[in-house]
Amino acid sequence: MNIKHLHEAPHLTTALTGPLHALESHLLDRQNAIETWFRRHWQTTEPPFYASIDLRNAGFKVAPVDTNLFPAGFNNINPDFAPLCIQAIQSALDKTCPDAARVLILAEEHTRNLNYLDSVATLQELLILSGYDTRIATTNPEITSPGDFALPSGNSITLYPAQRKDDRLIAEDFDPCVLLLNNDLSSGLPEILHAIKQTVTPPPALGWNSRLKSGHFEVYRQLAIEFSQLVDIDPWFIDPAFRNCGKIDFMARKGSDCLADNVGKLLGDIEKKYKQHQIDAEPYVVIKADAGTYGMGVMTVRSPEDIYELNRKQRTRMSQSKGGNAIGKVILQEGVPTYETWGDPPAVAEPVVYLIDRFVVGGFYRVHTKRGADENLNAPGMHFEPLAFEEPCNTPVSQLAPDAAPNRFYTYGVIARLATLAAAHEIKTVKGESA
Amino acid sequence: MNIKHLHEAPHLTTALTGPLHALESHLLDRQNAIETWFRRHWQTTEPPFYASIDLRNAGFKVAPVDTNLFPAGFNNINPDFAPLCIQAIQSALDKTCPDAARVLILAEEHTRNLNYLDSVATLQELLILSGYDTRIATTNPEITSPGDFALPSGNSITLYPAQRKDDRLIAEDFDPCVLLLNNDLSSGLPEILHAIKQTVTPPPALGWNSRLKSGHFEVYRQLAIEFSQLVDIDPWFIDPAFRNCGKIDFMARKGSDCLADNVGKLLGDIEKKYKQHQIDAEPYVVIKADAGTYGMGVMTVRSPEDIYELNRKQRTRMSQSKGGNAIGKVILQEGVPTYETWGDPPAVAEPVVYLIDRFVVGGFYRVHTKRGADENLNAPGMHFEPLAFEEPCNTPVSQLAPDAAPNRFYTYGVIARLATLAAAHEIKTVKGESA
Repeated sequence: MNIKHLHEAPHLTTALTGPLHALESHLLDRQNAIETWFRRHWQTTEPPFYASIDLRNAGFKVAPVDTNLFPAGFNNINPDFAPLCIQAIQSALDKTCPDAARVLILAEEHTRNLNYLDSVATLQELLILSGYDTRIATTNPEITSPGDFALPSGNSITLYPAQRKDDRLIAEDFDPCVLLLNNDLSSGLPEILHAIKQTVTPPPALGWNSRLKSGHFEVYRQLAIEFSQLVDIDPWFIDPAFRNCGKIDFMARKGSDCLADNVGKLLGDIEKKYKQHQIDAEPYVVIKADAGTYGMGVMTVRSPEDIYELNRKQRTRMSQSKGGNAIGKVILQEGVPTYETWGDPPAVAEPVVYLIDRFVVGGFYRVHTKRGADENLNAPGMHFEPLAFEEPCNTPVSQLAPDAAPNRFYTYGVIARLATLAAAHEIKTVKGESA
Repeated sequence: MNIKHLHEAPHLTTALTGPLHALESHLLDRQNAIETWFRRHWQTTEPPFYASIDLRNAGFKVAPVDTNLFPAGFNNINPDFAPLCIQAIQSALDKTCPDAARVLILAEEHTRNLNYLDSVATLQELLILSGYDTRIATTNPEITSPGDFALPSGNSITLYPAQRKDDRLIAEDFDPCVLLLNNDLSSGLPEILHAIKQTVTPPPALGWNSRLKSGHFEVYRQLAIEFSQLVDIDPWFIDPAFRNCGKIDFMARKGSDCLADNVGKLLGDIEKKYKQHQIDAEPYVVIKADAGTYGMGVMTVRSPEDIYELNRKQRTRMSQSKGGNAIGKVILQEGVPTYETWGDPPAVAEPVVYLIDRFVVGGFYRVHTKRGADENLNAPGMHFEPLAFEEPCNTPVSQLAPDAAPNRFYTYGVIARLATLAAAHEIKTVKGESA
C-alpha cells in the first residue's frame, strides 16, 4: 500500500457550519445512545461483509450519496489500519463461514485497471493476514490460465480463471468455502455463478443488475428518521432528499416530463429546507442511473428546463451505465455540495468511508483539483488523488471541538454505518425473498 | 495515555536463536492453519473478556510464565491501538451482555497505587469510546462516597463505593448491566459480591482465591501439545515445564522434602531438554505461590539443596502472597531466562501481551536495568520502564526475517493466545461446575 497520509483534515470552506456543529455536537453528546442503537440493530440485521460509502459534507449537512457493496479502493486506505481490517475480517468470516480456511475473491473483469487490481491485491493481503488462504478469480474470458500482473504499487497479483466444478466455483485445485464477491454484477450474474452451492457474500441479489439506488435510499430514509429522533436533529441534516423515475429513454427523449416534473418538485423541497435552516445556497439535483455505479450516467441540473435542453452528447452519456447497460430507471437526488477543500490552491475533497462487518476500518478523501463543489467526483476519466484518513473513525475526543479531525471522522463513521445498516436491511429482504 | 514508543524491538542477546528461528518460521509458514485452529477452538470455548500474558523469550524457547485474567497496565499499551481495543470490546460485550449500555468496573482496593488507577482510567476511557457508559467502583472500605483522584498521566478518575441494592451491585444511581471484574480476588470474594444477579466477567471463580497457576499450566500443556503437532515442533519450545507441591509451610519448614525432591526432578527434566537441543545454559527453577499474583512469594533455585538453605528473610518472603495470604501451595516452574535486552547499557526486557476477547490488542516490554536474565521481573518494589509495542501482533510480514519485529510480535501473539485459550478452558470448567 503506497499512499499519502492525511496530516490535516480538509477544511470546511462554508460559513454555514452552524448546523453541522450542532449535528456533530449532538452525535458526540449521545455517543452511548448511538452505539447502543447500532448494537440493537446489528443484533437482528447482519451487516454486509464490506461496504464503502461516498459521503458529502456541505457544512450544513453530511449525507451519503452512494453505498457500494462491492468496494474497490482498499489500496487507498491507511495501511496503519490493517490491524483493524484484520480484526473485522475475522469477526465477519467467523460468522459467515466458521470452517472456511479458503476464500476466493471474485473480482471485476476489467484486468486493465491496475488501480483496481491493486485494491483487490490489498484485500487479498488482508484476508491472508486474517488467516485465510485466498486466491483471486475472474470471469474475464481473456483469462484462461493463471496469470501474473505487475501492479503500480510494485507488488504483483495472480488472477485465476473462475472455473465450475459440479455446483462449486473453484480456481484450479483451490476449492473455497466462501466466495467473496468484488464484482458488482453490472453486466448481470455470470452464468458460472448460477446455482452455486458455496456461500457467496455479499449476496449476488445485491448486484447492480437488480439493486436500485432508490431502494437503498428509501430504507436509509426510514433509518435516518429513527436515528434522528434518537439524536434530536432534523433528519434532513443526514439524509439527501430524492425521487425516482422509471421508463426513461434519454436518446428517444422518452420520460422527460416525468423527469422535469420531479426535478421541479425536488428543487422545491430543497428550497424549503434551505429557507427553514437559513442556508444561502442554490439548490440543485443530481440525476443518476438507479442501477449502476462508477459515476457513469450522472448529471447535475438546476431547473426542470435543463431536462429539455440536454444536447446529444449529454443524452448519449446518460444513456449508458457501466457495462454498456441502457439506463431506464433514474434516481433524482438532492445535490449535496462538497464544501471540504484540501491544500493550496484549494482542491475539492469528498470522503469515502470503508466498513468491514459492522466496523469502520478507515477511509480516504477523493481530492480533485479540477472540479466544482457541486459536481460528481466519481465520473469516468476522473482523476483524483486519494488522501487516506490519518485517524480511525471510532475514537472521538470529547475535549476537542466538535469539528476537530477525530470528531469529524466519528461523524463520518456514524453516517457511513447508518448507510451500511440500510444496505444490511436490503440484504435481509432479498434473503427473506429467496428463503 | 503517556507512554514511550518502541521504535525498535529489543535485541536477543543469546547465540541460541536457532530453535527460535525455527519456531518463528514454523508459525509464519503455518499462519493459515494456526488461525483456523484458533477459530475452531473459539467456536466452542468463549474467550475471557480480557487477559494479559507475561512471556519470556529465551532465544531457544518462548513461553508464557503468567496469565492474568484481571489485567492492569492498560496505560502502558500503545494509544495508537485504542481503535483495536474498541473493536475488540465491542465484539466481547455484544456477546456478554447485548443490551448493556452501562458497565461497572470493579477495581482493586489499593487506591494508593496511582499507576494502577491510571490503568483503570484507560480501561474506562476505552469502554466509553466503545459506547458504554462506564463507572469505576471499589470495595475499599475507605471509599465511602465518590472521590476524585489525580493521576500521574494528568487525568483524573472518580472512584465510587460499590453498593448493594437487592441482588445487584450499583454505584449511586448507576445500575450496570455488566460488572467488569478488575480485582483479582486475592483477598477472597468480597461479601458484597455474593449471589449477585448481574453478569460478572471474568467469572469470580477465576479469582486468585480459588484459581491455581498449576491448573492453568496443566490446561496450557495439553493445548501446547495439540498446537505443537499442528506446527510440527517440540511442545517444550513453547511450554514451561512445571511441578507443584501442596501443604508447604515455609516458616515451619514443612514440606521441604517435597519441594527439594521436585526441584531435583524438574532440573533433571530441563537438563535433558537442554542436552537434546544442545542448549548451553544452566537450568533453574522458579518457585511461586500457586495461587496469587504480583510477584510476591517468588524465588529462583538452582539445586535441591537451595531449599534447605533458605534464610529467615527468604522464608518470610515466601510465606506471604498478595493480601497477606499464607502460601500453602506452590508451583515449581522451569526458569525461562529472558534474553531480550533493550538500550545501551543493555537492560533486560520482558514482553507482556494484552488480549481483549480473542484479539491481541497490544502489549509492552517491562524493561529493567537492575535485574538479571533469570530473575523475576515482576517482584514487589520492582521498578520497570514500560515500553509499548509499536506494532500490533496480527500483521506478520512474510518478506521479512522470521525474527523481524512484526514477525516476533506475531509469535508473541500466538503464544499469548494459546495461554488465553487455556484460561478460557478454565472458565468453561468453572461455569460447567456452577451450572
